[in-house]
Formats: sequence, structure tokens, C-alpha cells
Amino acid sequence: MGSLADSLEELARIGAAEDGGVTRTAWTPELFAAYDWVAGRMRAVGLAVEVDPAGNLVGRWEAGEGKAVAVGSHLDTVPTGGRLDGALGVLAGVHAVAHLREQGFEPARPVWVIAFMDEEGPRFGASFFGSRAFSGDDLGSYLGRCDAAGTTVAEAMRERGFDSAHTGAAARIDEVSAYIELHIEQGPVLEAQGRAIGVVTSIVGLRGYRARLRGQANHAGTTPMAMRRDAFVGAARVALELRDFALSRPDVTANVGRVIVSPGASNVVPGLVEFTIDTRSVDPETVRELERLVPDVAGRIAREEGLELELEVTSSVEPLQLDQGLQRLIEDAASTEGASTLRLPSGAGHDGLILGRHVPAAMIFVPSRGGISHSPDEYSTPEQIELGMRVLAGTIARVSRT
Amino acid sequence: MGSLADSLEELARIGAAEDGGVTRTAWTPELFAAYDWVAGRMRAVGLAVEVDPAGNLVGRWEAGEGKAVAVGSHLDTVPTGGRLDGALGVLAGVHAVAHLREQGFEPARPVWVIAFMDEEGPRFGASFFGSRAFSGDDLGSYLGRCDAAGTTVAEAMRERGFDSAHTGAAARIDEVSAYIELHIEQGPVLEAQGRAIGVVTSIVGLRGYRARLRGQANHAGTTPMAMRRDAFVGAARVALELRDFALSRPDVTANVGRVIVSPGASNVVPGLVEFTIDTRSVDPETVRELERLVPDVAGRIAREEGLELELEVTSSVEPLQLDQGLQRLIEDAASTEGASTLRLPSGAGHDGLILGRHVPAAMIFVPSRGGISHSPDEYSTPEQIELGMRVLAGTIARVSRT
Repeated sequence: MGSLADSLEELARIGAAEDGGVTRTAWTPELFAAYDWVAGRMRAVGLAVEVDPAGNLVGRWEAGEGKAVAVGSHLDTVPTGGRLDGALGVLAGVHAVAHLREQGFEPARPVWVIAFMDEEGPRFGASFFGSRAFSGDDLGSYLGRCDAAGTTVAEAMRERGFDSAHTGAAARIDEVSAYIELHIEQGPVLEAQGRAIGVVTSIVGLRGYRARLRGQANHAGTTPMAMRRDAFVGAARVALELRDFALSRPDVTANVGRVIVSPGASNVVPGLVEFTIDTRSVDPETVRELERLVPDVAGRIAREEGLELELEVTSSVEPLQLDQGLQRLIEDAASTEGASTLRLPSGAGHDGLILGRHVPAAMIFVPSRGGISHSPDEYSTPEQIELGMRVLAGTIARVSRT
Repeated sequence: MGSLADSLEELARIGAAEDGGVTRTAWTPELFAAYDWVAGRMRAVGLAVEVDPAGNLVGRWEAGEGKAVAVGSHLDTVPTGGRLDGALGVLAGVHAVAHLREQGFEPARPVWVIAFMDEEGPRFGASFFGSRAFSGDDLGSYLGRCDAAGTTVAEAMRERGFDSAHTGAAARIDEVSAYIELHIEQGPVLEAQGRAIGVVTSIVGLRGYRARLRGQANHAGTTPMAMRRDAFVGAARVALELRDFALSRPDVTANVGRVIVSPGASNVVPGLVEFTIDTRSVDPETVRELERLVPDVAGRIAREEGLELELEVTSSVEPLQLDQGLQRLIEDAASTEGASTLRLPSGAGHDGLILGRHVPAAMIFVPSRGGISHSPDEYSTPEQIELGMRVLAGTIARVSRT
């Protein structure tokens, strides 16, 4: 079978970009080429392979009885993304099955390895399609979307031989007893603290906003400072006040990541700024607080600067507490492998966030060099990856023993 | 001849945009169509018309003897600009000549009405081509430029029948004794204070910068706040600190007008922000102070936020004191017309800034509704415009009497 790092290397050739990144967008031939290649690996370790009506690749180790232990992640990427985000969780599942078979382990229940469709979501502007479909969640807003070329989800599915009317048949969460996902941390904490394995305690809740501040575009030389209605000054103040709030609290992040300044000339006072606000916390109470804070801060600053504010909630995700029993099993498996662990929250969403609302779920992190992700520079060492796979295998063994 | 407002209305049809704005870019057929139309008006009031080797339209009232009194402005516009910026100064000059002739006035020296080529400068990214050429200033950086389509200045000139090698022959500042320009204020001060005529005391000096702050693009959920190197936070702090400084001083403006945030995704910490800084003052000492302040502020904030700073000076203009004798003549002419006046600085550059370094120069402002300029909403009433023209005529008469 070779090493997990070799498998990841080989998979990264599918959709490889010139800059070393990987682009496998949802419903594209590149993604299905990756499916074909991974399906071959699944079959090689004795899994029964199918692609479900929502485009999820499912490999089943038909063993034991009762509900399955599911592991997995996704094979789609952001544009010129990294080689590990998603791919690690799927291929580690395949290698873990091989590892358990080599050890002669016989699970008491089925083990499924799943690659969920379109976790990342950039093509249609919505994430977690496959895991939502698998969980039986509402898909309405995804199915109604178009990509930048005007292709609808239904058309994109039809091009690959899927009928969007049948995605409901992908709901199989009732056949699953637990879900475990191995993923790169995508943050700097494990590396900074020198720990090998992250045991994820919770996944952050999120409130995302699109804000629009409208002032008055005017000549930057002739308009006295006190008579300006400078939309960029407003946006800058909002960004800094939310940053200061987040810095003052251990469990909050705030980000202003997309900023469009109009008219955008050096000698014109900005009349309009459109920007995003991304706020997160693992604590449900804090998420409520953020929900009040963001409109309060933006509204007050808009008044003080003489600006008009439009503020729209663009995403709203509740925090998820991961299963504590599974966390202990991961720590036990890590201990057997001699791996140091750290309990930490996940600041990013994952398929586990979706499945975890229906079944006990857990996530295992391995360190990300420099915390970098969604980039060709995304990297974990072969040793870190292999250790993560072994801890995943050990956890599968512990969960599927009962 | 009709009213000046009617003439402006008619001229605005040349290069008219659908939104009510006007686009007459340098060296385009639209601009030369405007030249043809204005040349007809010039001839109708008895001016001898030529277009000089730098593309300046010059109408000469060959009267009296000695050096000429020059008045004028420009006929080129920013994209979808207003109907008055530039056009007012040129057509008011033509109407002022007609007005003086009707009164039987006979000047003791020639009176020239000039439309300078490419005052605005957006096509090639450099302003004041025509007035620089007329003044005999160095044109090197303009002649080496390309527009967005890759057309060089030399090619653009050749298309209209000009040879860029001959622009030096346009230098005729030695034949001029004084320059007077009527312009809209492009700011809100005259309107706010209820004055009809602005007598410009000085034109601001400017230091313009292109700044680049480089941090680390990272996941906005997984990167702890204290470990971020957020380039947008840095740019926001620079903008606000310079704004606060400008607010604290009566004679300073500061503007961050163009801001490009990369990679520009809601869930990614900004890794790179490129932005412009525009600082101005009429006081030469304060301009020196700004020259020290901007790198100090940006450098300190970059260090505090863990960012790399590149800061490049993109424009550097010294403030200009306008001629005090001419200011008194304008006030005298305004008094004769029963017009209230206000002495005020100009926050914007004008052709008068270029000529004023060589000969005594003056500028007359009329109110701009809402201070709005470089916009289809640019507006002054027909009465305000007519009064401005009469004050210009009265000033020409006073200057050309000797």
C-alpha cells in the first residue's frame, strides 16, 4: 500500500496547479477523477465502493453488525488549495482500514470511509453539501444556486450523471453510530505548543455579516476634514473595535477579510465601503453576545461618522460540543502510540460539524506548519500524518469493538 | 452669444455619458470635438485661434501691446465627470471677452483664453500636461507613459496629428504677464458660508504615497487573535491615526482613498493591503511635517502589528502662494458686481498651480452645490456661474488696463 504521505502525493497530482496547489472543485471532472483513484484504493483494502445520490464517495467495510462507525472528510478543494485539507481525512481512513486489517483486527460493526461532496463550497457559495445530504438536512438553499458561469447545481450534477431530485436518498445518518474525522489543524496552536495530536473539544459557532457603509464621495483636497462622511474611516473603526473586543476575550475571533472601497481613487474620499465581518466563538452565550455586539458597534460608528449602514447576516452556525467519550478514546489511542495530545477547539467548520448534530462525533487534528492552510504552502510532515492515521485507526478500533 | 450656462449646456453634449456625466479624455476625438466647438465660439468673439504643439487650445485677443493676460482652464474631464470642472474656466474666458467687447473695453495688452491639454491626467496617470508644456516645465515622465490599452503618449498624440518631439515649442510663458483662472470650488465652503465668490489665497502642497503592508494570510477561525499579522488592521490604524492628526489641525487634510485587500475572503485574515495616502497643506512647514509624520506613523504601526511596510512617494507638489495684488483686484471686481467674497485656500491642484510658479497667478471660485465634483452631480446655478464670469471679466479689465 505504501505510506500515507505517498498516497497523498499521488492524489495531489489530480487537479494539480502550476504553483504547487491543487484545484478540485465540486462536480468537476477533476474531482471525479480523484474519486476514481481513491475508489481504487478503497477496493484494494477490501471496501465496497459506491457514490451516493448526493455525490458522496462511500467505501464500506462490511463487518460485524449494527450501525457503522464512519470516518472521512472531503476530496474537493478551494481554488489552488493545499494537498491535505480534506484529502488527509479520506486517505487516512483508507490507510487506517489497511492498518487494522494488517493487524488482524475484526470490527464488531461496519466501518465506512466517506468523502463528502463539496465541503468547501466556493463554486456555489455554500458549504457542506454532501454531509448535509448524508445527514438528511435541508438542502434548499444549495440546490437553488448558480456558479460564476451561471451553471445551476442541477446542471452541474446532471453533467456528472446525477439527478438533483434524488439527493434526499443520500440520507443515511440513521445507519451510523459515530463519526470520526482526521484533519489538519489549519491553525498554529499544535505547532506552537509542540503537541502531536489535537483532540477537538468543540467546533466554533459563527456569525458572518456583509456590511455596507455609505458616506459621500468627495474631493480629498477641497472637502474640510470635519465635513467629510468617509466610509473607509467607518469601516476601519468597525474592524479595529471588533478586533479589540476579540483580543480582550480568550474565546472570540473577529475578522474583516473582504473590503471593497469605492470609488477607490487616491484623491477621493471613499463614499462607499462594502466589507465582511466574521465573528466566532465556541461558547453559545458568547455567540449571542456577538450577535448583539456587531450591529451595536457598526450602528454607533455609522451614526458618529454620518454614514448609512446596511448589515446583513450571511451565515449563522451554532457551536457544537463534540462527544466527550470519543475524546477520551482518542486520547487513549494517542497514548498507545506514544503521541502527546492537546485538547483544543476548532475555529473552522468541518463535515464533523454537520454529522455531529445527529450522532456522537469527534475530530483529530495533526499540526499544520505555520498554521497555513487553503494554500499551496499547506504542509504537515510525513511522520505527523502517519501518526495521525495510527491514532485514527486506534480510535476506530476502540469504537468499533462495541 | 446667449448665456454662459447655455454654452456650458451645449458643450456638455460632447462626450455626454448616459448617467448625465461627461467623458472627454485627453487626446481623444471627443476632446478635439470640444476644441472645434469652443474654437468656433472663440472666433465668434474675435479671437485668433490655434492649437499649440502640446495640444493646448489658445484663443488670442490681439490688442494693445506687451505680454498677455492669460485666462483659462481645461476641456478634458475625468471619466463621467461633471459639466463645469475645467469647461467653466475656458468658456467663462470666452464670454468674458464678449462681455468686455460689448462694453467697448479696449485692453492695453493682449488677452489670451487657453484650454490646457490633459489637466486631469487619468488616462496616462499624470496631470497638467498642457500647462506644464506651456510653462516650459519638464515633461519627461508624462511622455514615457502608456494608457490602460498600452497606447503611448506619443502614439495618442500622433493619432491626432501631433508630434511628441515638438511639445517644447508650446512653451510660451514668457509671453504672459499674469494668469487668472475661474473654477468651481469643488468643495463645500462657499455654499456653507453663503459667499458668492472665492478669492483663492494659495494652492495646497501635496505628498501622496502608495503604501503596502504585508502580514500573513491565514484562516480567520483557526488563527488565535494574538498570533495574527493582519494587514488590514494595520491599514485601518494608519488611516485613523492620520485622520485624527488632520482633524486636530486647521490646515491639513489626509485621505486613504484606494484600498486593495488580499486575498479578500471573509474567512481569511488579510495578508496584504495596498493603499494610498494623500496628505495636503497650504503651509510649507506643515508639508515638511507631514513628510516626516507619514513614514513615522506607518512604520510604528507596522512594527506593532508585525507587518512589513513598503512606502513610496507617488506625488510631491509644493504649496503655492497666489499673487496678493491679483487677489485685491478680484475683490475689487467682485465689489463692483455686488458679490460677497471669501478668501480661502484651494485644496485641489489646478493649471494655475503650474503657471503660478512662473507668473503672478490668481484663481476665482464659484460655489459647488454640496461641494460635489468629478461627478454627474457637479452643479452651480446659472446665476453663480454668470456672476463668476463677470468677476473674471472685471479682473481681466483691471489687469489688462496697465
